[in-house]
Amino acid sequence: MVVVMSADAEEADIQAVVTVVEGAGGEAFVSRGVNRTIIGLVGDVEQFGTLNLHALRGVTDVVRISVPFKLVSRENHPDRSVVRVGGVPIGPGTMTLIAGPCAVETPEQTLQAARMAQAAGATLLRGGAFKPRTSPYAFQGLGEKGLRILADVRAETGMPIVTEVVDAHDVELVASYADMLQVGTRNMQNFALLQAVGGVGKPVMLKRGMNATIEEWLMAAEYVAQRGNLDIVLCERGIRTFEKATRNTLDISAVPVAQRLSHLPVIVDPSHSGGRRDLVLPLTRAAIAVGADGVIIDVHPNPESALCDGPQALVDDDVRELAQTVRDLPPIVGRTLATA
Amino acid sequence: MVVVMSADAEEADIQAVVTVVEGAGGEAFVSRGVNRTIIGLVGDVEQFGTLNLHALRGVTDVVRISVPFKLVSRENHPDRSVVRVGGVPIGPGTMTLIAGPCAVETPEQTLQAARMAQAAGATLLRGGAFKPRTSPYAFQGLGEKGLRILADVRAETGMPIVTEVVDAHDVELVASYADMLQVGTRNMQNFALLQAVGGVGKPVMLKRGMNATIEEWLMAAEYVAQRGNLDIVLCERGIRTFEKATRNTLDISAVPVAQRLSHLPVIVDPSHSGGRRDLVLPLTRAAIAVGADGVIIDVHPNPESALCDGPQALVDDDVRELAQTVRDLPPIVGRTLATA
Amino acid sequence: MVVVMSADAEEADIQAVVTVVEGAGGEAFVSRGVNRTIIGLVGDVEQFGTLNLHALRGVTDVVRISVPFKLVSRENHPDRSVVRVGGVPIGPGTMTLIAGPCAVETPEQTLQAARMAQAAGATLLRGGAFKPRTSPYAFQGLGEKGLRILADVRAETGMPIVTEVVDAHDVELVASYADMLQVGTRNMQNFALLQAVGGVGKPVMLKRGMNATIEEWLMAAEYVAQRGNLDIVLCERGIRTFEKATRNTLDISAVPVAQRLSHLPVIVDPSHSGGRRDLVLPLTRAAIAVGADGVIIDVHPNPESALCDGPQALVDDDVRELAQTVRDLPPIVGRTLATA
Amino acid sequence: MVVVMSADAEEADIQAVVTVVEGAGGEAFVSRGVNRTIIGLVGDVEQFGTLNLHALRGVTDVVRISVPFKLVSRENHPDRSVVRVGGVPIGPGTMTLIAGPCAVETPEQTLQAARMAQAAGATLLRGGAFKPRTSPYAFQGLGEKGLRILADVRAETGMPIVTEVVDAHDVELVASYADMLQVGTRNMQNFALLQAVGGVGKPVMLKRGMNATIEEWLMAAEYVAQRGNLDIVLCERGIRTFEKATRNTLDISAVPVAQRLSHLPVIVDPSHSGGRRDLVLPLTRAAIAVGADGVIIDVHPNPESALCDGPQALVDDDVRELAQTVRDLPPIVGRTLATA
Repeated sequence: MVVVMSADAEEADIQAVVTVVEGAGGEAFVSRGVNRTIIGLVGDVEQFGTLNLHALRGVTDVVRISVPFKLVSRENHPDRSVVRVGGVPIGPGTMTLIAGPCAVETPEQTLQAARMAQAAGATLLRGGAFKPRTSPYAFQGLGEKGLRILADVRAETGMPIVTEVVDAHDVELVASYADMLQVGTRNMQNFALLQAVGGVGKPVMLKRGMNATIEEWLMAAEYVAQRGNLDIVLCERGIRTFEKATRNTLDISAVPVAQRLSHLPVIVDPSHSGGRRDLVLPLTRAAIAVGADGVIIDVHPNPESALCDGPQALVDDDVRELAQTVRDLPPIVGRTLATA
Repeated sequence: MVVVMSADAEEADIQAVVTVVEGAGGEAFVSRGVNRTIIGLVGDVEQFGTLNLHALRGVTDVVRISVPFKLVSRENHPDRSVVRVGGVPIGPGTMTLIAGPCAVETPEQTLQAARMAQAAGATLLRGGAFKPRTSPYAFQGLGEKGLRILADVRAETGMPIVTEVVDAHDVELVASYADMLQVGTRNMQNFALLQAVGGVGKPVMLKRGMNATIEEWLMAAEYVAQRGNLDIVLCERGIRTFEKATRNTLDISAVPVAQRLSHLPVIVDPSHSGGRRDLVLPLTRAAIAVGADGVIIDVHPNPESALCDGPQALVDDDVRELAQTVRDLPPIVGRTLATA
Repeated sequence: MVVVMSADAEEADIQAVVTVVEGAGGEAFVSRGVNRTIIGLVGDVEQFGTLNLHALRGVTDVVRISVPFKLVSRENHPDRSVVRVGGVPIGPGTMTLIAGPCAVETPEQTLQAARMAQAAGATLLRGGAFKPRTSPYAFQGLGEKGLRILADVRAETGMPIVTEVVDAHDVELVASYADMLQVGTRNMQNFALLQAVGGVGKPVMLKRGMNATIEEWLMAAEYVAQRGNLDIVLCERGIRTFEKATRNTLDISAVPVAQRLSHLPVIVDPSHSGGRRDLVLPLTRAAIAVGADGVIIDVHPNPESALCDGPQALVDDDVRELAQTVRDLPPIVGRTLATA
Repeated sequence: MVVVMSADAEEADIQAVVTVVEGAGGEAFVSRGVNRTIIGLVGDVEQFGTLNLHALRGVTDVVRISVPFKLVSRENHPDRSVVRVGGVPIGPGTMTLIAGPCAVETPEQTLQAARMAQAAGATLLRGGAFKPRTSPYAFQGLGEKGLRILADVRAETGMPIVTEVVDAHDVELVASYADMLQVGTRNMQNFALLQAVGGVGKPVMLKRGMNATIEEWLMAAEYVAQRGNLDIVLCERGIRTFEKATRNTLDISAVPVAQRLSHLPVIVDPSHSGGRRDLVLPLTRAAIAVGADGVIIDVHPNPESALCDGPQALVDDDVRELAQTVRDLPPIVGRTLATA
């Protein structure tokens, strides 16, 4: 940490900072400049964070110079991690395709979507039984009935299932069915939920908040990790910007940036970021090429009747093109399509 | 709703839209233009929303032309509402000052802060016992012990209390102490929490999500209202933009815009939006002048030792200036400082 | 400036930074921490900026700790400046109302709008003869004919005129008519234009770019100031964010922030930021209350036939309310309405 | 266009809209709903845009339903265009690599960078002689001397040159040396400059404004096209968002979106969007995979001494990896590396 003093800070102000830092067990290195003085702090940054150095007289700024997360940081864990979901790896070396319907509606629709997903090369099945919806008047999901449908389709197809949990008190229920728990973009800072999924012993997919910085996303992962669960997969799904041609702006750079800061796998959701079917395949290609460890995609046997996000679901023709993409593109970037 | 057809849509595509809309009990008015055709829909918009018209062949765009919220809408409730918190009104005609410490730390600190708040003209006491924090390593609040301190200070000062709840399953506990429940910016789309606070019979202060549009904010209020609770106060607290000189960008226009769309009172949090003590008084003046129904402000007897957001808390000198502002400015905009 | 070394930087990397800095005539203070080393630089920051320290081995980050502008900085010029436009002051102590039509259309319309402006309390007349328009198919302004109309209306009303210049090569022409040159939001980083208006000896109103940080805005002012012209007034006019209920988001906090960083006057444009007539008066009140040195407002005798931005122009009834606001509100914040 | 009437609009208000529209030679189709009436307009949209329908009594909203650009629109020109720069194609079927130094500094540095570019597979040379800089204290480019160096390097290497022009009055000078004129992000709405480059008969590369929507970008291209020049290449280079880990956020979705709206080629600048060398190769791969018609990349023989944007320039090792990428990746998406 660096404390920047104002141009008119007095010697006593500088000494006060030094005293406070040393009182907290740290060291303070004072660099006196022509116009202003800066003080470099060495020691326990968490501790310094509680000192309210900002509030001391003569202090203009306090600049943090190391990352605030630990367990998920790559600094302390240089090798990139592999997370296994029911035997399917997500991590370096592979490119994992997760696909399925946005929402579970009926057993038939779910099974058909799972077959489409498999035809495309997917080894994990996505599908929502609990849906967070902006409007209280929109379809909220089938709840436990949806989870049972997913379990039946898993039995039929052999695909492990990834499904969302939206309330801390449903975590045990959802975990009793799911192979991987998804925390959605609107819940990325629902800290009670993060802690609950951290304690239940299942892999977690943590979507980036649509307004969250990469650093805040990693701090949210740290909440999960703190409960002893490091099987976390980060999922970039677009951020909110001024551009309205797409539902959100896919932050493709976030993939290599997060992979450099954290050892956790990073995947991309090209369906929800664009919100348009015609963008799903181009964005999938961009995601694989940039080095994502996987992609998660909406497919639906009959999108015009979908209860949720129909306009962005892939249909049959697209599935053939997707299959070709996930077969041909990963080898160009040194990866192979993940299998169970 | 208006359905816009693409330039190359065929007559059969147009008829397909008409058929779907009429099948759902609506009426469809077709306007054929030189370059493209548009279809105006009349009937139940909620119903149309489930039709996935986007997915039909030849459809370019579906434009909603009425607001998606009902209970909180001013269209259906032209008079602006007054919400009473322990006898203190928040609404048109008055300007209510809510003040107190960001976090409850000790009985002494809380009482001192409450006395500062009263000296400034506040009639409601704010103070957090449960704190949502970006970092799992930061102070998370005193929990129920903090609620008891707040209750004691209420007994001592007579000020009703406003305090945050961060988990749906703490709602009953917090409601058993609080006069008003606060839902924070990170929880604006925690739908389980919104429904829980909607069902507990206490007034609710709903902070705008830092990434939420005004429409999404009103939809979140609709979740609360749906449970039968219309005692909701909206609180603008800054949105996330590219500007980094302030912690968030106070969206001052959101006050008149939300007041025009909704009958609910709208207040402003100048402390958290700016994140800087030197901005609190100017932003408070802006908020009162723009027509806010109240402001909520951090005060702390000793900000340099605050466990949370010390840099933005007002101190003694500021309190005197704040007292003068809330006395002199409201009458210029046709309001009086609210009293119990 | 502070150079932050990576955790695995070697002693040789640290020495390389020191050598480069000392070679440029600076001093380098090394603070070795447990995890990483930081190096504080003292000397000529401009000079350090050219050293490409980022590119040296082992360097993680280079943090600037002082502001990059000089002539417009308040650090070097603690008293806030007053800019005089044809005898009308803009600066501390006063609140200056600038009003008029968005675009000059006819002599009658311009004169009528000027009379409306005067009735509201305005002492400066705004009006555009050269209009920057997003669409090449939109009305681009009357050009020199518009300037002559403005000059005639000035002769008739006695109001000095503020008008926009959009091309460096029109600066002399526009300056031969205008009392103050306006640089618009789309041209805030048109450096050729900034330098041209800096050299022509007339006061300049510099609108903030809708995507510009406050720091970039002050750097743009520095371009003007470098040519010897310090008669610059900064104008906040809204920034681009995700919120679409208003055309732009008025960054009301930018007023006190810019006034703290720079000695230049700061005014607000409530008409263009909101883009809606119903927001102009509330935002005008917010601007005055937050401490703006002035406001600039669109008025039009007949907005439904305006060739530019009609929806946001004030009409007769509003003008009476505006007159009351600019008379009653400034004294509450220690200012008086500016007169010639 | 669709005019949405307010819930309390009267029959006379509706008739007034119809009358105005018909008076302008259009047709108005009225759809009366239970809650509100909408009016579909058919005819000349440009004409309707000047009617100020927003300002009529009872009008809530005016919704545009067709794109506002014509010459660059794909609606009127379904085949995607190829732009040729000194014999090198940019367009569908090929992937064109443009590379070179951010700024021209010396003949040696420029020639060395050109050789690096060629080694990577580049067939066009980029290099700036006129640099727009945020700070007036930063290096502004060598001007005409830089253009002469570029011409010499072209003679030596055979690579056509792409270089930026920042002032309308330098357009003829720059065009006398350059094979393609670049308009930078800060000048995307410098309309005088757009018109000047439109009239000089050389291909134009138009960078997206960092705050510009895709629609505004295409409107800027329309300004150039209006002067008779349709040899325009669009360049996505990142937009400004809240995320600070990268200099800007590369909007990778903008490539397929712009290609669908316009027939013009779309390329990507991975160097300036990320602002970090370690992101250039991943983002280049993403750009090619998403379907960009080209990429433009900074290379520098000696980045630590670069006068401009050194931290993002590729060096020797990267160049080998880049060569492999531009050879292996385009065929996967049905393209070949462009040659002269």
